[in-house]
Amino acid sequence: MIKITLPDGSVREYDSSLTVMDVAKDISEGFARNVISAKFNETIVETSTELTTDGNLVLFTWRDDDGKKAFRHSTSHVLAQALEELYPGVKLSIGPAIDNGFYYDVDLGDQSISEKDFKSIEDKMLEIARGKHEFKMRSVSKDDALAKYKEEGNEYKVELIENLEDGTITFCDHDTFTDLCRGGHIPNTGLIKAVKIMSVAGAYWRGDENNKQLTRVYGTSFPKQKELKEYLELLEEAKKRDHRKLGKELEFFTFSQKVGQGLPLWLPKGAALRERLEQFLKKAQKKAGYEMVVTPHIGQKELYVTSGHYAKYGEDSFQPINTPAEGEEFLLKPMNCPHHCEIYNSGPWSYRDLPKRYAEFGTVYRYEQSGELHGLTRVRGFTQDDAHIFCTPDQLDEEFKKVIDLVLYVFGSLGFENFTAQVSVRDLDNPEKYIGDVENWEKAENAIISAAKDKGLDYIVETGEAAFYGPKLDFMVKDALGRSWQLGTIQVDYNLPERFDLEYKGSDNEMHRPIMIHRAPFGSMERFIAILLEHTAGNFPLWLMPEQVIVLSISEKYEKYAEKVLNLLENNEIRALADHRNETMGKKIREAEMKKIPYIVIVGEQEQNDNTISVRKHGGEDVGAISIEKFAEIITEEINRTLKPFNG
Amino acid sequence: MIKITLPDGSVREYDSSLTVMDVAKDISEGFARNVISAKFNETIVETSTELTTDGNLVLFTWRDDDGKKAFRHSTSHVLAQALEELYPGVKLSIGPAIDNGFYYDVDLGDQSISEKDFKSIEDKMLEIARGKHEFKMRSVSKDDALAKYKEEGNEYKVELIENLEDGTITFCDHDTFTDLCRGGHIPNTGLIKAVKIMSVAGAYWRGDENNKQLTRVYGTSFPKQKELKEYLELLEEAKKRDHRKLGKELEFFTFSQKVGQGLPLWLPKGAALRERLEQFLKKAQKKAGYEMVVTPHIGQKELYVTSGHYAKYGEDSFQPINTPAEGEEFLLKPMNCPHHCEIYNSGPWSYRDLPKRYAEFGTVYRYEQSGELHGLTRVRGFTQDDAHIFCTPDQLDEEFKKVIDLVLYVFGSLGFENFTAQVSVRDLDNPEKYIGDVENWEKAENAIISAAKDKGLDYIVETGEAAFYGPKLDFMVKDALGRSWQLGTIQVDYNLPERFDLEYKGSDNEMHRPIMIHRAPFGSMERFIAILLEHTAGNFPLWLMPEQVIVLSISEKYEKYAEKVLNLLENNEIRALADHRNETMGKKIREAEMKKIPYIVIVGEQEQNDNTISVRKHGGEDVGAISIEKFAEIITEEINRTLKPFNG
Repeated sequence: MIKITLPDGSVREYDSSLTVMDVAKDISEGFARNVISAKFNETIVETSTELTTDGNLVLFTWRDDDGKKAFRHSTSHVLAQALEELYPGVKLSIGPAIDNGFYYDVDLGDQSISEKDFKSIEDKMLEIARGKHEFKMRSVSKDDALAKYKEEGNEYKVELIENLEDGTITFCDHDTFTDLCRGGHIPNTGLIKAVKIMSVAGAYWRGDENNKQLTRVYGTSFPKQKELKEYLELLEEAKKRDHRKLGKELEFFTFSQKVGQGLPLWLPKGAALRERLEQFLKKAQKKAGYEMVVTPHIGQKELYVTSGHYAKYGEDSFQPINTPAEGEEFLLKPMNCPHHCEIYNSGPWSYRDLPKRYAEFGTVYRYEQSGELHGLTRVRGFTQDDAHIFCTPDQLDEEFKKVIDLVLYVFGSLGFENFTAQVSVRDLDNPEKYIGDVENWEKAENAIISAAKDKGLDYIVETGEAAFYGPKLDFMVKDALGRSWQLGTIQVDYNLPERFDLEYKGSDNEMHRPIMIHRAPFGSMERFIAILLEHTAGNFPLWLMPEQVIVLSISEKYEKYAEKVLNLLENNEIRALADHRNETMGKKIREAEMKKIPYIVIVGEQEQNDNTISVRKHGGEDVGAISIEKFAEIITEEINRTLKPFNG
Repeated sequence: MIKITLPDGSVREYDSSLTVMDVAKDISEGFARNVISAKFNETIVETSTELTTDGNLVLFTWRDDDGKKAFRHSTSHVLAQALEELYPGVKLSIGPAIDNGFYYDVDLGDQSISEKDFKSIEDKMLEIARGKHEFKMRSVSKDDALAKYKEEGNEYKVELIENLEDGTITFCDHDTFTDLCRGGHIPNTGLIKAVKIMSVAGAYWRGDENNKQLTRVYGTSFPKQKELKEYLELLEEAKKRDHRKLGKELEFFTFSQKVGQGLPLWLPKGAALRERLEQFLKKAQKKAGYEMVVTPHIGQKELYVTSGHYAKYGEDSFQPINTPAEGEEFLLKPMNCPHHCEIYNSGPWSYRDLPKRYAEFGTVYRYEQSGELHGLTRVRGFTQDDAHIFCTPDQLDEEFKKVIDLVLYVFGSLGFENFTAQVSVRDLDNPEKYIGDVENWEKAENAIISAAKDKGLDYIVETGEAAFYGPKLDFMVKDALGRSWQLGTIQVDYNLPERFDLEYKGSDNEMHRPIMIHRAPFGSMERFIAILLEHTAGNFPLWLMPEQVIVLSISEKYEKYAEKVLNLLENNEIRALADHRNETMGKKIREAEMKKIPYIVIVGEQEQNDNTISVRKHGGEDVGAISIEKFAEIITEEINRTLKPFNG
């Protein structure tokens, strides 16, 4: 008799061994039809795997990441078979699943693959897939495994096998094809209904440039043609919205080899955007009782030894800065919190002075390997919209709610409407992992959960995900392309107040430790602007646009009237510019569209005579001929619709 | 016959040798009465020195720095004589003139000097001075000089003499006193009408802590009692206005040993002040056509090798930052210009795009030895209100004028009314010292001088003071205590455009080098705020004050009315706060005065009934009971008086 425990804790008992798929069918025939992969006792297995002992079973469908992984890994076998059939003598090496697809590295000998060959490979793969061939694992001895590949003359597989430990080695067969494989397949090739070869690239065997360069064939696959189509459209759209591309087109930022990788230089339009975002948050923060501070970008090494950051980042980050004469050592600051703790320490404070809420747009520097840098989302220097709240335990509840209000205000004003929250709490089974006293932890966790509930957040609680120094709440935002981004984090900290010996005098006249909250609604200005660019494709909410209106005159004759319009708009605090270049109207409109300017104002004889303007929205919608006052009203109304004042 | 050339180029001829004073008298008896020291052929001489050859003679009065130096140096002889008379057995070492006074280092043996002894020393000095003893130089042989001090047992003078080169050594006699001395005295002790011993301190012989500690007696002296009195009052006032003291009292900034020396932490009120100053300048700069940019605080070492800053600062400054994996080297930026050059280089530009005016509140880091750090005026990290203008040679003239307008606007808005300007131009005799072509230099120098003239500046032209890379204009501002500060610099640069290979396409379709202008009206935010604090004693122009109004209620009963007043003021964009603490009105007023809050509003029964407020200015002036609307008008008017919009 064997007992199979499912993820929901239910236990199923069987008289004799049975396959994974049998268990799935036992749960429900309908469910079983969707099961494509499984994990038994933390090991990936096949749906055909025979379960002979008690254990924990997790069944995966296409919806699960592990399901997708099995699906794509299986497709890489089909790709390999297709390549063997189309490119006789091809030597296979490795072919794993990756995010959104898979690849196979192959040695094509004298042959080569280019984009024009993709279609025939895809056709061949679909032809194989339609055969509904089952994936079957079988064990072979190391000698037999070696013999097979030595006979084929495949030095790559031979090397792989030689590096495996002695014992059982597994092959996977389907149709006429066999591959060295650890397992993790879908039931049969028939589930693969849509395939796409994405690209080919050179890849050194084992990533070592002293080895032979192989051909890496990238592909993806789906259980439905429709899903592949949607995925390719999404890719196309993401490419258009790539913040690196838009950032260049809109003249927001640039990089310089001389200044260094991962260190963005903000051009005037991007800097104006940053400034607008900063002023927006400063205004809300002021209303919420924050006080701005300014701290240096370096600190003595001891500061970070005290904070614990040196132990954590020291070796892998920018190295200490020495001074010529006095043997001091400074570090570029990776975080603003130690500086803010020292500002708190300039007090003495009583409970009546708390909470203190110190905010700073603080630029921090963290070393990232050059290969990991990516536009503005992965940089070496970035500005956090950082703040640290120092409060009494009794104030935590309210402070947390206030921070959530602020974060929701920020998301709302910037057009992020879909988001969820995750509350990370202690693992109660391992209390030794956490610092700070139990009573305070309980208070804090309850405060966070009750705040999340109160504010109507769509949240989940993750046990054991808390940092060692305190519980936290993270926001996950979904962008217009359905991609998830972590934005906005609120973190309770019992650690730094201890390390910096922070104190306040309580109503009992005794000294107490304040609790610290770290929070950053944007997270980093750089990353936030990148996400905002990709979310909106550069069509920011009107209040944030670097230029809201462009004024074009039909001909030189109306330039003067255009300038008058421009002045009136500027007097209404509308950010406008005029384009008087000697170019065709069509070209000027096209360029204004490319710059994403929300409103195009055109003036000619008619408009000048009637004292009106003709207005056209970005994208082409015609607003018609209206008075400047009416236009100013339309704009003000549109701004007020998204940018409401913060009532924190 | 000898020819004496005076500074104005005039030549006087004499049949035979004569003294310096004879020449002075020959010029004018009245003038001669004021002459106290002189320089002949670049060597400091006595007024009694006999001139026996042709040469250039400069005569000094008390108004001249060299005159003051001779005066104070002479007084140190008088101090030494007084000490010899009052402290038998005292051994003299050295006694130079310093800024604003002089000191003498003496070995008092078992005796000591404390503050209570200052009066008797001063009296003794004045008694000697009244004797109108002439200072007379005489030559002695090294052996004779050594013999004198060996006999007296003065090992300090012996050591000094032994270290002198062989040859003639000079002594100076007056009254009964003789000292080893190089010369540079006033005619006689009678000119010294006012003396003051300022302090005593320990000082190691020759500054070496392995040597014996001597007593350093600091003093100052003046030709009139009135001048001494004024000087002492100025010192007293300067102490009160010390920005380190005020900065602490007003809670503007603090320092932390853990963060590091010379790295200010800006507290909320100071940060708000900075922000206000920045917004003020940003607004004016926007109107003047500047564009804000944002650049990182580090750059690759190569960037600074290219700019030449590494060669200049490299060894003596913060050392390079290494990275763990990739062998890159970064430097904390000592200047923003290289980054702005790289932003310019993100172009291509045509002459139609110029001028580009890139502005940034850029924080830079420069290593200073800890002993040289001083509050906010000498720090290791500071924020420049930096901007770089890239223009064509033809635009230089207008750009320079515009920058002067901006600087004058800044000075005017912040209450700096006394200033002069210095134009630094090439030394035409040494053309090889400068880079850039002669024609451009001429153009630039003429542009600067004509701009200074046009703008009605009180300026002088200093030949040979230009930097190797271009001419410049510096502003010297006189503060309320009459002290001079260098504020606001405008610099032409032909060097960086060359080093960074900056280009634009001219109207001739050829590529040309733009000219670069560096400028910073404030200079550094830190230093500027320090000077502003000392200039205004914390009583900034109203528009800049962190808190403009404080509202105090006579008793708890009127708190509600006070809150209403507060709200109305805030609705009028007036920065106000209320003090509802349970303290006496007297104490609350005293504290508001200490915080330099410009207006104190008091409300009680009368005010509540009449719907008025009682207003009192900082310093005590009573404005009386007025309506809130009237008060808002008064404030708005006061603000508009200093803070006019910039019409650049």
